[in-house]
Amino acid sequence: MNYDGYFARALAQLQDEGNYRVFADLERHRGNFPQATSHCGQTRDVTIWCSNDYLGMGQHPDVLSAMHEALDKVGAGAGGTRNISGTTHHHVLLEAELADLHNKEAALLFTSGYVSNWAALGTLAARIPDCLVLSDALNHASMIEGIRHSKAERQIWRHNDLAHLEELLAAQPLERAKLIAFESVYSMDGDIAPIAEICDLAEKYNAMTYLDEVHAVGLYGPRGGGIAEREGLMDRVTVIEGTLGKAYGVMGGYIAASVDLCDFVRSFASGFIFTTALPPAVAAGAAASIRHLKASAAERASQKEKVAEVRARLDAIGIPHIDNPSHIIPVMVGDPVKCKYLSDILMRDYGIYIQPINYPTVPKGTERLRITPSPVHSDADIDCLVGALETLWTQCQLARLPMAAQ
Amino acid sequence: MNYDGYFARALAQLQDEGNYRVFADLERHRGNFPQATSHCGQTRDVTIWCSNDYLGMGQHPDVLSAMHEALDKVGAGAGGTRNISGTTHHHVLLEAELADLHNKEAALLFTSGYVSNWAALGTLAARIPDCLVLSDALNHASMIEGIRHSKAERQIWRHNDLAHLEELLAAQPLERAKLIAFESVYSMDGDIAPIAEICDLAEKYNAMTYLDEVHAVGLYGPRGGGIAEREGLMDRVTVIEGTLGKAYGVMGGYIAASVDLCDFVRSFASGFIFTTALPPAVAAGAAASIRHLKASAAERASQKEKVAEVRARLDAIGIPHIDNPSHIIPVMVGDPVKCKYLSDILMRDYGIYIQPINYPTVPKGTERLRITPSPVHSDADIDCLVGALETLWTQCQLARLPMAAQ
Ligand SMILES: Cc1ncc(COP(=O)(O)O)c(C=O)c1O
Ligand SMILES: Cc1ncc(COP(=O)(O)O)c(C=O)c1O
Repeated sequence: MNYDGYFARALAQLQDEGNYRVFADLERHRGNFPQATSHCGQTRDVTIWCSNDYLGMGQHPDVLSAMHEALDKVGAGAGGTRNISGTTHHHVLLEAELADLHNKEAALLFTSGYVSNWAALGTLAARIPDCLVLSDALNHASMIEGIRHSKAERQIWRHNDLAHLEELLAAQPLERAKLIAFESVYSMDGDIAPIAEICDLAEKYNAMTYLDEVHAVGLYGPRGGGIAEREGLMDRVTVIEGTLGKAYGVMGGYIAASVDLCDFVRSFASGFIFTTALPPAVAAGAAASIRHLKASAAERASQKEKVAEVRARLDAIGIPHIDNPSHIIPVMVGDPVKCKYLSDILMRDYGIYIQPINYPTVPKGTERLRITPSPVHSDADIDCLVGALETLWTQCQLARLPMAAQ
Repeated sequence: MNYDGYFARALAQLQDEGNYRVFADLERHRGNFPQATSHCGQTRDVTIWCSNDYLGMGQHPDVLSAMHEALDKVGAGAGGTRNISGTTHHHVLLEAELADLHNKEAALLFTSGYVSNWAALGTLAARIPDCLVLSDALNHASMIEGIRHSKAERQIWRHNDLAHLEELLAAQPLERAKLIAFESVYSMDGDIAPIAEICDLAEKYNAMTYLDEVHAVGLYGPRGGGIAEREGLMDRVTVIEGTLGKAYGVMGGYIAASVDLCDFVRSFASGFIFTTALPPAVAAGAAASIRHLKASAAERASQKEKVAEVRARLDAIGIPHIDNPSHIIPVMVGDPVKCKYLSDILMRDYGIYIQPINYPTVPKGTERLRITPSPVHSDADIDCLVGALETLWTQCQLARLPMAAQ
C-alpha cells in the first residue's frame, strides 16, 4: 500500500471532475461587512455575497461588546468539557435564552449545529428502543451522519412529500417508536417544509418530530424563533434544532425540547459529553445576538427587501434562479467547471465573492451560485452584482429565461 | 410508545446508579484563575482543581489581546463553512502555525478536537481501500466514534501492549492498508504510550500512525509540540492530532500531516466540510497561545513543579493516586456515590472544585477525583487542597496507602 500515492490520485480525480475546492482566504472588515480583503493570489477588496451571516449580526455592536466583556471578565476558553469544569454561567444563561426563544422547557448547547444534529439524532435514534427514523431525502449531512451513527432503522421519504411520509408511517405499528427528521428552510434550494402537515401526521401516527431550523432561526417569526414560530407550531414540534453560527453570527448549535429529552441527550450523547465546551465569550455573543433579534424585527424586514430587490433585478434580465419562499437565491449554472469559472471572474474582475457550490454539497449537475442578500448590502452593491452577472451571462453564452428576450 | 416516560425512566436509572451528572455552574475570574464563582445552589468562591486549561493560557494577556483585536478587526463569527466564505486569514495563519509546531507540511483545522478525531479517522479509514484500523483499547470516545463511523475493519490492541499490537500487525498481509490509532498522554490515567516502539512496528509492517496528542500539546517538548516532539519522533508519526481547547486555552482541533493527507481529509470529511468555521477571534487567540508556548518554557516548568509538589504532599499522607509520568493526578475513590459525595463536600466546605469522574468517562469501579495542578495554583491553594483531602479521607474512612502510617 502506497498511502501518499493513494491520496494524490484521489485529489487528482477531484481536479479532473472540477470538484476540487479552493478556499477563498478572506479578511472581513468590521463595521464594513460585507466588504472584505481577499488574500487569494493578489490581495484585493471584495464584496461577500454568499455569507451565512445572513443579517450581519457577526458585526453587531451588541454582539461584539458582549464578547469583549466576557473575555475581560472570564478569559478565553471554557477549560473543560461541560461536565468537568467547562460549564460557565454564560452557558447556563444561553441555554435559558434558547429555551425561551422556542418556548420550550429546556435547551442544550453543542459546539456546532453539525454536532447538535449528529449527537442528538444519533443518541435519540440509537437509544429509544426499536426506533424507526423517517428522514427527508434532502436532509443535511449532519442529520444523515447522526442517523447513520445510531444504527437505527431508517426510511427516506421523498423531499417534502407528505403522501410518501404518510405511506411509510401507516405501514408501521402505532406503538413502534418513530422519529421524523426534517428541515424547515432547505439551505441549497431555499424551499420550506410543510411543518403543520408533518406535525399532523406525527400526531396521527404517534411519532416524534425533529426539525432543523438552522437556516431559519433569527430570520423568521416575530422573535426570530424560525419558521415554526412564524406558523405558531413550536409547541407541536418535539425537538427544534438550530445554529448560532449563521443568522446569529457567532458559533455553536443547540436543541430545544422538553426537560427530560434534553437531559437524556445531555446524559448519553458522546458528542456532547466528550468535548471542550464553547468559549464563554462565544456563548455571551450568541446570547446577545438572540436577545437583539428577539426584540428587533428591523434586520429581518430589511433582509426581505434586499432579497426581493435582487430577485426582481435578476428576473428582469432573465438570470435563472430557483423560485422559493425564503431568503436564499440559487442562481443555477449546472456545471462545476463553468460555475467555478464564473466565480473566479466575479472575484477577479468585479470584486464580487460568490463561492461556487458543487458536489457533494449539491448533486452533480445542479452546480450553482448561491446568493444571500443581507441588510448590509447597499444599492450600489446590488447594481454591481446584477451588472456583473448580466455581462458574464452574455460573455459566457449561458442560458437565460424567456423574459430576458422581453 | 410513551416517549416522555422512556426518557424519565432512563434518567431515574442514572440517578439510582449514582451516575447522574450535575454540572457545576462556574464563573471564572479573569486574571485570577483558578479562582471562580460557583452558582450552584448558593453563590460562593471556589478554586478550580480540575481544569484542562492546564497552563492557565485561557487567561494569558497575549491570548486575550489577540482575541480582542480580531473581534475589533473582523467581527464575531466566520459566517460560513470553510468552503463558503468562512475561511478567513486567521484560519490560514493558524494552520501554518500548527504545521510549523509539529514540523509537518500542513495542518487542517476543525471546530474541536472531538470533531478532528471523528472526521479525520472516519474519513481515512472509510476511504483508504480495505483499511484495517488497529485501535488502542483506551482510545478516547471521539476516536472510537470516528473508527466506527468509517465502517472499516477494526481490531483493538490491549492498552499500550506492543506485543499484542505486533501480533495483530504480523497476521496481516504487508500490502494491506493499516492505521494504528493511539494517544500519547491518556487523560484519565495519565500514562504515556511508547511512541517510538509503535513507530518501529508501523514501519516494519507498513502501517500509518495516528497519534492523539490532545493532552500533551503545549505541555511537552521544547516548543510544546507534545510527547512526539519531546522524543524527537514527530517526523515518524503520520498524523498528529491535537486540540486548542486544553493547554492552549481556547477551542478547536486539528490534524498535522503531509499536504496530500490534509488535503484529502479537507476534501472528503463531512465533519470538516458541512459546518461553520471557527470564529476568527478563536483562531487568533489559539495562534497567539501556540506562539507564546513555542517560545516560553516557563509555564511548562512551573506546571511540573506544582504537579511534583502535589504528588509529594499526597504521598506523605497516603492518599492513593495513580503514579504516572504526566501532569495528571488521578486520586482513586472507586465508587460513584462516594466520589460525588467527596466532590460535594470539597465544594461546600472548602471551596474546592474537583468534578467527580464517573462512567462513561472511566470504567465503573474506577471513579476518581482527577486533579490537574497548574502554574496558577499558589502554595496556599495546595495547602488548602491537601488539608481538605486529609480531613475527608479520615472522616469518610477511606483507604490510605501504607506510607500514611509512617
Ligand atoms: C441544514 C443544516 N443543518 C446543520 C448545519 C450545521 O450547522 P453549523 O454550521 O452550526 O455546524 C448546517 C450548515 O452548516 C446546515 O445547513
Ligand atoms: C484524548 C482526547 N482526544 C480528544 C478530545 C476532544 O478534544 P476537544 O475537547 O477539543 O473536543 C479529548 C477531550 O475532550 C480527549 O481527552
